[in-house]
Amino acid sequence: MINAIQPLLTHIEKICSIDTDKTNLIGSFLEHKICHKKDLLLTEGHRCFEKFFIVKGCVQLFYLRANGAEQTLDFALENWWTSDFTAFQDSIPAQFSIRAIEDTEVLCISADAQRELLKQIPEMNAYFHLVFQRAYAASQMRLRYLYEFSKEELYLHFLKHFGAFTQRIPQYLLASFLGFTPEYLSELKKKFLS
Amino acid sequence: MINAIQPLLTHIEKICSIDTDKTNLIGSFLEHKICHKKDLLLTEGHRCFEKFFIVKGCVQLFYLRANGAEQTLDFALENWWTSDFTAFQDSIPAQFSIRAIEDTEVLCISADAQRELLKQIPEMNAYFHLVFQRAYAASQMRLRYLYEFSKEELYLHFLKHFGAFTQRIPQYLLASFLGFTPEYLSELKKKFLS
Repeated sequence: MINAIQPLLTHIEKICSIDTDKTNLIGSFLEHKICHKKDLLLTEGHRCFEKFFIVKGCVQLFYLRANGAEQTLDFALENWWTSDFTAFQDSIPAQFSIRAIEDTEVLCISADAQRELLKQIPEMNAYFHLVFQRAYAASQMRLRYLYEFSKEELYLHFLKHFGAFTQRIPQYLLASFLGFTPEYLSELKKKFLS
Repeated sequence: MINAIQPLLTHIEKICSIDTDKTNLIGSFLEHKICHKKDLLLTEGHRCFEKFFIVKGCVQLFYLRANGAEQTLDFALENWWTSDFTAFQDSIPAQFSIRAIEDTEVLCISADAQRELLKQIPEMNAYFHLVFQRAYAASQMRLRYLYEFSKEELYLHFLKHFGAFTQRIPQYLLASFLGFTPEYLSELKKKFLS
C-alpha cells in the first residue's frame, strides 16, 4: 500500500497542505485494488459504493445502449478520480459501468470511509473541492466542443491535446468516445496521416 | 446585503455545519449585484475574476459561434453557482459569456476573496466540495443524455425534469440549449400538446 498511495499523496500535496501526521492516516481509509485489463470496477445497475483514484493504468466509463452496444463516455488516467458520482453521492444504482482498459491499479474509497476521512482530516475537503472544480471546468469545455466542433475538428482537437493517450487505447473505444463508427475514425486517420 | 445573503447561508446550512460567528463573516467576502434582464455578468474573451451564486433570477451561459450566432450551453437558477470555471481557476480569458435572462440578483466572489474566505473559514471547502461534486455528477448525466437521446427524447426529458423552468425562459434560448432550431422546437411543442 505504501508505494500505491504515494501518487495520491503527491497529488494532494500539489493542491493543499496537510500535516504529515494526518497524511500518514489517509491510506487507512483507502483500499488498493489491482485490476486486470477488462475487469469491471463498477457495473451499471449495481450500487456504487466507491470512487476510484487511478494510480496506474486507464479505465473507460460507459453505458449500454438499448441495442446492447457500449457507448464510451469518458476515460480516466493516472491521477484522475472517477466514479458514477450521482450514484456515489445518492446511494442509487449506477447508470455507468467502469472497466479497466489496461492492467490498472486504483485506490478506492467508499462513501462511508470518505465521511470518516473528512471528519478526521477536514483539510481533504480543500483537495476534493479543487479536484471537482477542475473536473467540472473540464466538462464545461467538453460541452462547448461537443456543440461547436465538427466530427473532424473533434478528432483533431483530441489528437492535439491527448496525442500520447490515443496510442494507449483501442481505436474502437476512441471511436465510441468521439461518437464515430470505427470505420469513420479509420478514414480520418488515413486522411491526416497521408 | 443581509437579505441577499440569506439564500446562500440556507444553502450552506443544508450541506455543512459552520459556527454562527463564522457564517456571520461570509457576507464580507461577497459582493451583491443586481442585474437587469439582458445584462452581461461575464463576457467571452474577458478575464473571469468571479463566480456567481444566483440569489434570484436566471442566467444563460453561452458562446459565440464562428457565424456570430449565440450557442446556449447552460442555464443557472436560484441556488446554483455559475462561472466559466476554467477561466476562474486559471485566470485566463473566458470562453463563455453569462447573461441575465430575467432581472437577477447574484452574490459574486472573486478568486482573491475566495482564497481569503477559505483561509478564514476552511469549513467552506466542505460546502464547495459537495457543490462541485454535484455539478460534475449532473454533467456526467447530461453527457449520457446527449449521447443517448434523440432530439425528441431530449426535449421530453427536459420537459419532465424542468417543466416549470421551461415556462420561464424564452423559447429560442431553450431551442439553442437543446441544439434545435426554434422552428423544430415549435413543431415538437405542437406535436406533444395536441
